[in-house]
Amino acid sequence: MDQSLIKKYAEVIVAIGVNVQEGDHVYINAGTESLELSRAVVRECWRRGAKDVITVIKDEQMALARYEEGRDDVFDVFPDFEADYLESMMKHKYHRIALRAPSLDLFSHISQDRIQRSQKASNTALEPVFKYMDAGDIKWVVAGLPSALWAKKVFPHLTESEAIDALWEQIFHICRIDCDDPAAAWAEHDAKLKARERWLDGQDFDRLQYTAPDADFHVCLADHHKWIGGSSVTPDGVSYMANIPTEELFTTPHASKVSGFIKATKPLVVMGKIVEDFSFTFAQGRVIHFEAGKNEDVIRTLLSMDEGAGRLGEVALVPHSSPISQSGLLFNSTLYDENASCHFALGKSYAEALREGTSMTEDERKALGANDSMIHIDFMVGGPELNVIGHRKDGTEVPVMINGEWAMD
Amino acid sequence: MDQSLIKKYAEVIVAIGVNVQEGDHVYINAGTESLELSRAVVRECWRRGAKDVITVIKDEQMALARYEEGRDDVFDVFPDFEADYLESMMKHKYHRIALRAPSLDLFSHISQDRIQRSQKASNTALEPVFKYMDAGDIKWVVAGLPSALWAKKVFPHLTESEAIDALWEQIFHICRIDCDDPAAAWAEHDAKLKARERWLDGQDFDRLQYTAPDADFHVCLADHHKWIGGSSVTPDGVSYMANIPTEELFTTPHASKVSGFIKATKPLVVMGKIVEDFSFTFAQGRVIHFEAGKNEDVIRTLLSMDEGAGRLGEVALVPHSSPISQSGLLFNSTLYDENASCHFALGKSYAEALREGTSMTEDERKALGANDSMIHIDFMVGGPELNVIGHRKDGTEVPVMINGEWAMD
Repeated sequence: MDQSLIKKYAEVIVAIGVNVQEGDHVYINAGTESLELSRAVVRECWRRGAKDVITVIKDEQMALARYEEGRDDVFDVFPDFEADYLESMMKHKYHRIALRAPSLDLFSHISQDRIQRSQKASNTALEPVFKYMDAGDIKWVVAGLPSALWAKKVFPHLTESEAIDALWEQIFHICRIDCDDPAAAWAEHDAKLKARERWLDGQDFDRLQYTAPDADFHVCLADHHKWIGGSSVTPDGVSYMANIPTEELFTTPHASKVSGFIKATKPLVVMGKIVEDFSFTFAQGRVIHFEAGKNEDVIRTLLSMDEGAGRLGEVALVPHSSPISQSGLLFNSTLYDENASCHFALGKSYAEALREGTSMTEDERKALGANDSMIHIDFMVGGPELNVIGHRKDGTEVPVMINGEWAMD
Repeated sequence: MDQSLIKKYAEVIVAIGVNVQEGDHVYINAGTESLELSRAVVRECWRRGAKDVITVIKDEQMALARYEEGRDDVFDVFPDFEADYLESMMKHKYHRIALRAPSLDLFSHISQDRIQRSQKASNTALEPVFKYMDAGDIKWVVAGLPSALWAKKVFPHLTESEAIDALWEQIFHICRIDCDDPAAAWAEHDAKLKARERWLDGQDFDRLQYTAPDADFHVCLADHHKWIGGSSVTPDGVSYMANIPTEELFTTPHASKVSGFIKATKPLVVMGKIVEDFSFTFAQGRVIHFEAGKNEDVIRTLLSMDEGAGRLGEVALVPHSSPISQSGLLFNSTLYDENASCHFALGKSYAEALREGTSMTEDERKALGANDSMIHIDFMVGGPELNVIGHRKDGTEVPVMINGEWAMD
């Protein structure tokens, strides 16, 4: 693989993603899948004058060994001191870089009970950490880390080494790394997303109506909802790009005002399993029925995590013509697939997707319609037949997406 | 590489090394060099009924990036919360498995100043952690983790992949993995070491005299010194093998009663540099002169770490015919080379190498002659021409090693 492109990708993650400033503290959470990339990212953080860089390296095979071999009573435990450690980094304002390969169906043979108990224990213990993220002064970025497993899933007909090269090539293209000036390309892209953000905020929609052959869905937006696309800004005015790639415009739905039927248009990779061919029926904001062709029990687990798990926390619009979509590939990675498709998230909403949301309490946000949960799981609903109509309080209707594309273009 | 041998090696590390019991907590500190082995070790811990297994994976290339690119003021800092995290594991009695490849001369171009400041900062911050280790109820083991860099250093004339295979083969042989019943082989080996331990303790030597063409060296032993070979035992009676491999019998020298001249017989790999062709002159327990053919400044750095860094904290006897020595290889790994050769350590002594030492305070141990320091660095002095004579208080002399071999055999 072209080393100079890996270096440029690391530069984009560090300089445009988390936007490391001289004297920043950085926490890197990386998988073992591509040490080459993680090393380049670490080096770039130091080069940009970081005061400290802590890299926590996690291995999915080790997580699998725990699920397979662990005594049954280990899955309810998450040590306090482990949560304290991560919370300390938040307290000391360590900005966060997550480098991720999707775990795909690595845990397909593990009982849902073990997975659910384990995730509940960690999510509950890590609640104080998530609270710090809500305050908005921790910059963060999630970016893709190629793995052999992922590459073979995206390119099943290639050899492993060809597949890895092909995946790198796609990552470089989709993340605007393979152009002369990635920083300029990202600035231009961000400006376009910001223009859409202003347009959407200007519409002040009360409700979005989704129609497609497999969708008749109504989503009211939270009061004071704020659309976000591209870069975010910390309270002290430093911008960062929380996802690389990012093609979406997202905001906060109203947790108790969602109704209708919607079918997912891509599989969902979650908890080490792949859920396929699934749909939801909502009433008064809550999932009242669901079906799945494969791994339906994962949906059941997700929805039973807590009261907010069966309600929406994010509504996001992505044109069907996004560069990721144009690749014609199914990535089986939420980061990639959600930026190829309109989507929703079950679970917690983002504080920054409400006006003044980061300076509100959780209760104040809830009063406006924001959802709270220990989960935040995106699922994809976009496609070339999707239409989205915006409804204003005064009864006027504005086409937002027609046949999967922005209507205002 | 033969997967079944890697699994057997992992079993020896977990079952004989740290001797994981049902319900134990385990902390694994592993390099990124052989995930295959680390994964097998993690799996084996869970299989043996561990209550929790925390694996901290560190990467030397990332450490190098910090030294090369970090701002000059980052080297004096070690975050308190990082030390607290490690101390928490000790408090909660996480037994420790360290899987290590030597860093060789990876940091050869880094200024001693950066390395020294960095090591001082971490050693000072981690002092509370070391205190827990002294109490003796944390079981621990250090074992070798093959890396390409290490393999090529041991087998410079082989290709990288041949060298890695050859290194694995040596590790399997030296660590008694490639026999029918490794557990039985280790039990037999341990029994032999324990017999030597009893013999040495029975002699109650006051002083050891080292003579060789390049040595005229006198080491008084600490009061209440206790010889240790092979397995250790926790206060609650669980045995463990702190080094795999281990061939040594070691005890505590008197920190202020060492004198004479001694030349190292193998290079010393420390702080990412390789010190070669070096010697020490001691008087009243302290190094008063040293010379080195290569990287003399590393010795200077080591000795200036603190007051105890220039005094001995360990004296260890290993026959020249040890299996590692017989391989005829120079491993450039302290773990391997120290078990091929009589050696000493500069710096901190082990509490367990004094009778009742683990239940004494640091001051009580010091009063008996034990040394304290933030470092503990072994250097090798053994060879086929070394003679060691034991002197008792009553003036009698007993040959301990003749021409590098145990005299009592």
